[in-house]
Amino acid sequence: MSHGLFISFEGIDGVGKSTQADLMENYLASKGLKVVRTLEPGGTELGQEIRHLLLHRKGEVSARSEALLYAADRAHHVASKILPALEKCQVVITDRYLDSSVAYQGAGRELDLTEVRNLSLWAVNNLLPDLTVLLDLDAELAAKRRGQTGEAPDRLEREKIEFFEAARNSYLDLAKAEPRRIFVVDANQAPEKIWEAIVVRLDQVLESKGL
Amino acid sequence: MSHGLFISFEGIDGVGKSTQADLMENYLASKGLKVVRTLEPGGTELGQEIRHLLLHRKGEVSARSEALLYAADRAHHVASKILPALEKCQVVITDRYLDSSVAYQGAGRELDLTEVRNLSLWAVNNLLPDLTVLLDLDAELAAKRRGQTGEAPDRLEREKIEFFEAARNSYLDLAKAEPRRIFVVDANQAPEKIWEAIVVRLDQVLESKGL
Repeated sequence: MSHGLFISFEGIDGVGKSTQADLMENYLASKGLKVVRTLEPGGTELGQEIRHLLLHRKGEVSARSEALLYAADRAHHVASKILPALEKCQVVITDRYLDSSVAYQGAGRELDLTEVRNLSLWAVNNLLPDLTVLLDLDAELAAKRRGQTGEAPDRLEREKIEFFEAARNSYLDLAKAEPRRIFVVDANQAPEKIWEAIVVRLDQVLESKGL
Repeated sequence: MSHGLFISFEGIDGVGKSTQADLMENYLASKGLKVVRTLEPGGTELGQEIRHLLLHRKGEVSARSEALLYAADRAHHVASKILPALEKCQVVITDRYLDSSVAYQGAGRELDLTEVRNLSLWAVNNLLPDLTVLLDLDAELAAKRRGQTGEAPDRLEREKIEFFEAARNSYLDLAKAEPRRIFVVDANQAPEKIWEAIVVRLDQVLESKGL
């Protein structure tokens, strides 16, 4: 993939992915690049229908079936939206991509992580982002940012925080395994500070792509 | 899987799968076995919704996304219907299972067959039938049985027949690779003759399973 630029934002809910994606979109647009913003799951019409199926039957769908449905969503997302944009030399910024599946599966512990990763790689015919920005934040802080915990979280909130903390740790393991692609940023800072860190890395990637 | 018995029927449309499945169901029921009849795709409610998604958007869905959706259907079918029946020591007879995906993909030639097979095997956590009955018939004869060709088939019918003939050949390749599991029957005979051939093989399988 020498043409176009493919960027994903990752991190648990509440870390500020969309704020940073907005800043990145403006920055790239100011350089005259055409930017396509998208998201997973549900970045296409088919994907929204798949997501509806899943939400509608939460709990009834086996882990493997669920993983396959998310992979189908991703396969369609790549084939119908991401690849066509990259082929037109555009920039694609997606809120979540395959690392989400692996990190959340890592927290759920039902399926083998390597298998889940291989499934996603097959779905996307090995298309990996040029840059993945991982916004890293303590799960309790992220929950507070989402306004979801009071002073003393109840049992359900506690379990949710533990799940997100496990997903966070899965993400950090992924970043360790692919330090060139996955750029980890401390999200416990003001948005403009976070952006300052990201833009340094982004400029390196732009330069390496001749953009 | 020492308890229960899992049987699949395979073959292109028009070979007479449901007639033979009916005969088998009656035979097994007469031996006091509890038989569950099912089918793919769409053997579950979720599967029907997935199938609806696919039919609704025929042509718009990429080959990988389509394969993943069929695999998700199969994963859910196994987890919610086939395995629970086998665990209750029942007999499951399914009209189509994973060989269908491989054979039809073999005819379509868009994806690697080994990859499609591995995808299905992952979806079902390696659950293979104890016996697969492959009804083998010339694609032109099968089309005639379905009442779909006149004396001189037009171009579209011709292409359809060629596709089904390619699927038939894929099926035969699969049977060569797994002769113990896949039992090939010449379907160009009267239904009772076909059944006579099947029941000999079925009795062997029943005996080996102590049923």
